[in-house]
Amino acid sequence: MKIAILTLFPEMFTGPLTTSILGRARAEKLLTVEPMDIRPFSAQKHKNTDDYPFGGGAGMVMTAQPIVDCVEAARAQGFTGPCLYMSPRGKPLTQQKVRELSTLDGFLLLCGHYEGVDERALALVVDEEISLGDFVLTGGEVAAMAVVDAVARLVPGVLGSSQSAEEESFSAGLLEYPHYTRPREYRGLCVPEVLLNGDHARIAAWRRTQALRETLRRRPDLFAAAPMTDAERMQTIAALREQSEGGVAED
Amino acid sequence: MKIAILTLFPEMFTGPLTTSILGRARAEKLLTVEPMDIRPFSAQKHKNTDDYPFGGGAGMVMTAQPIVDCVEAARAQGFTGPCLYMSPRGKPLTQQKVRELSTLDGFLLLCGHYEGVDERALALVVDEEISLGDFVLTGGEVAAMAVVDAVARLVPGVLGSSQSAEEESFSAGLLEYPHYTRPREYRGLCVPEVLLNGDHARIAAWRRTQALRETLRRRPDLFAAAPMTDAERMQTIAALREQSEGGVAED
Repeated sequence: MKIAILTLFPEMFTGPLTTSILGRARAEKLLTVEPMDIRPFSAQKHKNTDDYPFGGGAGMVMTAQPIVDCVEAARAQGFTGPCLYMSPRGKPLTQQKVRELSTLDGFLLLCGHYEGVDERALALVVDEEISLGDFVLTGGEVAAMAVVDAVARLVPGVLGSSQSAEEESFSAGLLEYPHYTRPREYRGLCVPEVLLNGDHARIAAWRRTQALRETLRRRPDLFAAAPMTDAERMQTIAALREQSEGGVAED
Repeated sequence: MKIAILTLFPEMFTGPLTTSILGRARAEKLLTVEPMDIRPFSAQKHKNTDDYPFGGGAGMVMTAQPIVDCVEAARAQGFTGPCLYMSPRGKPLTQQKVRELSTLDGFLLLCGHYEGVDERALALVVDEEISLGDFVLTGGEVAAMAVVDAVARLVPGVLGSSQSAEEESFSAGLLEYPHYTRPREYRGLCVPEVLLNGDHARIAAWRRTQALRETLRRRPDLFAAAPMTDAERMQTIAALREQSEGGVAED
């Protein structure tokens, strides 16, 4: 997989692209992620990449020419696939979209900055706008990092055998069950007994119950949409009702 | 404002914290953002910070002790406010939450990694879990960068006078209108005439109309919740219906 990140701030990506899981995956050539600096593509003498908005208003707007030329240069270098613009106007990123992207041979991520990007650049080279969520960032860079990170971990080989891409939140439409590791007791808090007795069927059942309850309690929207049996749905609702009526805070 | 970021990978933050708007804001001491390495706080000989999960399963779990000790060290260094754990189980981040955080004197961001964090660390030191959205990252680091970036731009002075924190997407519950800058014509595409004539009332009306239409077209959920007059609502719906029936792609 080959990902190009088109940005005015390529140096922002040095840490995220060389550290931890993504750094190792790139070192092992499991995927290519290349930040491309938009600025050198400016046809202007001082390599300007923004200008005042037509019609007035606060903020500067990124001009179309350097962006379009940078995308064309990326294409010439063999970066294929859709060009995605990171923008609060886009479709909010979901794990479903991450899975789709992970099946591609590659894609381009365009990072806007300042007040935004000249609409004509979007019309000419952008295939899709993607939003990280309903909040505003200073630019698309951190959003692009999130896309790369989320997609990379689904690329075969990136997560080692001791790690799991599938057992995570959302893979079954539910939030994750709670995790515990050593020691058995820490500051007076004990690991739940069920996790210590080696009965794998009981452990799996406990984790499923916890995942169902956490999801209903924290994200009723996900709970409503998640696949489960009628019995699971009713038991989870009953358990949480009992908990809240009994005033037992199992947090 | 003082923000501490507790992480196993402090070097990931070097680029994002020293570049562009956030870099300048930190240099001008408009806010403090300090990555704190969790690893040195490990009481283990080899400074281990993770271990196998009780009950089995894929992935490693971050142990409670180094996290709790790191949070206590941050408190001792004067970092106040809630400790937020970046987690897909958390409440999805919204601009409303960003605004709330921007009014605080500070907060702590705890980044998980690997399969997750021992639940007892969360019980002992975490006040709230925050999710970037319904997708899975390799760790909380990129999510923490997003929170810092979004909050920082609302801190007074961080965005220069030429920039606007308020005119952005979501501030009025609508997506942004399209932006245009020079030249007037680029690759055969022209700037809309209305933006060139200096009639500020007409420009404001055009932008409002565009914002309403983009929001209805891309995010009917936001459109339904956004404040607007009944006339605006009816006209926007009628305009988009006409467009789709007439087959005019005004994209």
